[in-house]
Amino acid sequence: MADKQFDVLVIGGGPGGYVAAIRAAQLGFKTACAESNPYADPKGEPRLGGTCLNVGCIPSKALLHTSHLFEEAEHAFPTQGIRLEGKVSIDVPVMIGRKNKVVDQLTSGIKGLFKKNKVTFLAGHGSFEGNGPAGYVVRVGAETVEARHVIIATGSKPRHLPGIPVDNRIVCDNVGALDFDSVPKKLGVIGAGVIGLEMGSVWRRLGAEVTVLEALPDFMPFADMDVAKEALKVFTKQGLDIRTGVTIGETKVGADGVSLAYTGKDGKEARLECERLIVSVGRVPNTEGLNASTVGLDVSDRGQIVVDGHCRTNLPNVYAVGDVVRGPMLAHKAMEEAVMVAEIIAGQAGHANLDTVPGVIYTSPEIAWVGKSEQQLKAEGVAYRAGKIPFMANGRALGSGDPTGFVKMLADADTDRILGVHIIGANASELISEAVVAMEFGGAAEDLARICHAHPTLSEVVHEAALAVDKRPLHF
Amino acid sequence: MADKQFDVLVIGGGPGGYVAAIRAAQLGFKTACAESNPYADPKGEPRLGGTCLNVGCIPSKALLHTSHLFEEAEHAFPTQGIRLEGKVSIDVPVMIGRKNKVVDQLTSGIKGLFKKNKVTFLAGHGSFEGNGPAGYVVRVGAETVEARHVIIATGSKPRHLPGIPVDNRIVCDNVGALDFDSVPKKLGVIGAGVIGLEMGSVWRRLGAEVTVLEALPDFMPFADMDVAKEALKVFTKQGLDIRTGVTIGETKVGADGVSLAYTGKDGKEARLECERLIVSVGRVPNTEGLNASTVGLDVSDRGQIVVDGHCRTNLPNVYAVGDVVRGPMLAHKAMEEAVMVAEIIAGQAGHANLDTVPGVIYTSPEIAWVGKSEQQLKAEGVAYRAGKIPFMANGRALGSGDPTGFVKMLADADTDRILGVHIIGANASELISEAVVAMEFGGAAEDLARICHAHPTLSEVVHEAALAVDKRPLHF
Repeated sequence: MADKQFDVLVIGGGPGGYVAAIRAAQLGFKTACAESNPYADPKGEPRLGGTCLNVGCIPSKALLHTSHLFEEAEHAFPTQGIRLEGKVSIDVPVMIGRKNKVVDQLTSGIKGLFKKNKVTFLAGHGSFEGNGPAGYVVRVGAETVEARHVIIATGSKPRHLPGIPVDNRIVCDNVGALDFDSVPKKLGVIGAGVIGLEMGSVWRRLGAEVTVLEALPDFMPFADMDVAKEALKVFTKQGLDIRTGVTIGETKVGADGVSLAYTGKDGKEARLECERLIVSVGRVPNTEGLNASTVGLDVSDRGQIVVDGHCRTNLPNVYAVGDVVRGPMLAHKAMEEAVMVAEIIAGQAGHANLDTVPGVIYTSPEIAWVGKSEQQLKAEGVAYRAGKIPFMANGRALGSGDPTGFVKMLADADTDRILGVHIIGANASELISEAVVAMEFGGAAEDLARICHAHPTLSEVVHEAALAVDKRPLHF
Repeated sequence: MADKQFDVLVIGGGPGGYVAAIRAAQLGFKTACAESNPYADPKGEPRLGGTCLNVGCIPSKALLHTSHLFEEAEHAFPTQGIRLEGKVSIDVPVMIGRKNKVVDQLTSGIKGLFKKNKVTFLAGHGSFEGNGPAGYVVRVGAETVEARHVIIATGSKPRHLPGIPVDNRIVCDNVGALDFDSVPKKLGVIGAGVIGLEMGSVWRRLGAEVTVLEALPDFMPFADMDVAKEALKVFTKQGLDIRTGVTIGETKVGADGVSLAYTGKDGKEARLECERLIVSVGRVPNTEGLNASTVGLDVSDRGQIVVDGHCRTNLPNVYAVGDVVRGPMLAHKAMEEAVMVAEIIAGQAGHANLDTVPGVIYTSPEIAWVGKSEQQLKAEGVAYRAGKIPFMANGRALGSGDPTGFVKMLADADTDRILGVHIIGANASELISEAVVAMEFGGAAEDLARICHAHPTLSEVVHEAALAVDKRPLHF
């Protein structure tokens, strides 16, 4: 007999896990959520919120915000008539302290949500022990829990590179990159993905000389090709030294920095000397500690839990959501799956549409997209029409002195149905939402073209891009 | 015989007029657009863009942006770890100069759009002369124009108050309020509408002591009551001294300022002494110079051109759009009507849905809404459900240090159809667009609740408000 009994046990307290637990509890299930990671908790107690809240989306946005203001003060203020008497400088500990406060507030907020929704928080690592009379038996720390339904939401951890040990002081993954105690003079970043670009941007804005090394031959192949091209141009102009097609060689880590040998795209050998190095080369699903084989849970060679479109595993009543399964490793994707699974357990028609999960990079300009890119449509042989409008044609963008980038809309050539929207520009992360809504309604470009957009707003560029699909923009 | 012949003549080159002209030309009509107002053009030549671009939406947003950054520098920087050595000060002429540059760029941009779309720009004031063989004869400056179709888009001008002459130096309407040469120590504002609040905010942020006098007993009665209440609280905390239910008495304007007597809500007599005074008590349609009676055009007692739902006047082939007709005086409403009219002239099924025209106030926090307010639904006896979520529960808002305000969604109690969305908070102007899109699709609150929103974004608060309509928010 297990120590505790629940209808639903969620393993993992990140965005997938805590949302699954809250929704299951709302639907009337006796629900528990297990989490063991203390992150930077001073008492070493497990913290809710997962990578996203503790060492991912949220803290990075706090630093991106501060560093953006810092850059505005240095560059935008003079042209706007804002006069500063002396130099602008950054107090890194204060910046990091504010970031930590935001994280504390949100992680403790989830504890409050658990209380409000009557979710039991179990402090401890969850791993399968076997089957009991009333469900699965899972060990959580020192006790055992029996639950009819188990939702696995154990997330992911940063992938590290052989020969480049991460100490999160000199060589950092996402965890250390959010906690520098000073601005490094020279910063190296391996991997030009979302994390590398965001963290590289933060420290570059604050004064670091940043070199980004990327193994793939193309920059941002996951984004629309026009967006990737514009992004490379803008980031390079900002001072990020981005080198693609690089092969990393021997890396020497000393007390004061890193000396890294690499071969460039052109085959030439080179060396990067930097005070700090960020390794951001992807993430690996957290399945090792689950004891999956005990219950026969199907885990792929890549360490992902194998699920169907409804996040069902090969085991009855066992589900998995978020980074630990296929699909983009995004908090909001995990939350969508979490709600779906809780509702399926409750006998409802849970559904998650991965085709309309937006992607965002919080650089400046921001980058956001939903649906298919132009190169994907070409590869799939889909006939499409494209509308592309620069923010330079927009009054709000000019008024706020930030007219970089564009909105690009792709629609089916026959039906006009919106197939993809790609934005690089200020506030792209917020602008993408109307595109997602339109796509979820199966909307056409003409629908967005015929919907009133407030003036003057950046969303008018989405409107104009929709008009441009039909070659009748009004303001371009 | 008139000097020139056109299929379509648009009178007025503001957002309603220039958009009508561009769309008509796109649809194959030989189109002209007449405008006589030079605004601040150094050569005195007529400028396109109307009030909105020259002395309204666009310049005010430029000043709001600069003054917002100024306030961030003074208040937000220290908590974020951004250190400034001395005091922050504002160079008003540089700020105004940048604003003027933005205006120049956009107004001249419209000239470019006219060229691209083959619209003829006629420099001169348009007024009806009568009927010709091929349509209406309109005098434009020194020449006469004959056109089969006429679209009137003459806009509006600021309402002034008797006994308070506007010189746009000491006593200003929107024109002068955008062109102060220094920050007044004390600024008076008559009228707590959109313009009064925006301009009051600009100069308060830059250091003015601002008193806003409003004749109506309630603050912002045009907004949802919860939003108005929150706005009053926040603006007051920011330092705007807002007094409602005020009756203005004798006003003495001297060389250095204004001395204004008024009676307060409590019946007590008081006096406001200020260096400058902004009069922002509404706007009046520009119909006087049209010579409407010559052709028998129906103009209401309030000076509005009388139109039906399709912006048709009482005269065949004469339409009127924007501020000069009924409905909210908003640039994007004018543009919607402009496109509709051009398409109706072309025999298409032009349509403008005034029920989904969003309203925006670009204060900080911003305020935006679409559809019905709670007090409207109550008055109409509509059964509704409401969901209200504060930005304080949102990671992005906390990350950017600006968690003021909330999103409130109102949906039909039976059908769940979204009836209104009301936002007070950072970026409200952009967040409202997904609500407009959802409403145009006849969407339910549950639709928005089931659509994936990128994390971490402010748009997640719209998502949560939709969930809250069904009493199942995940993050509150």
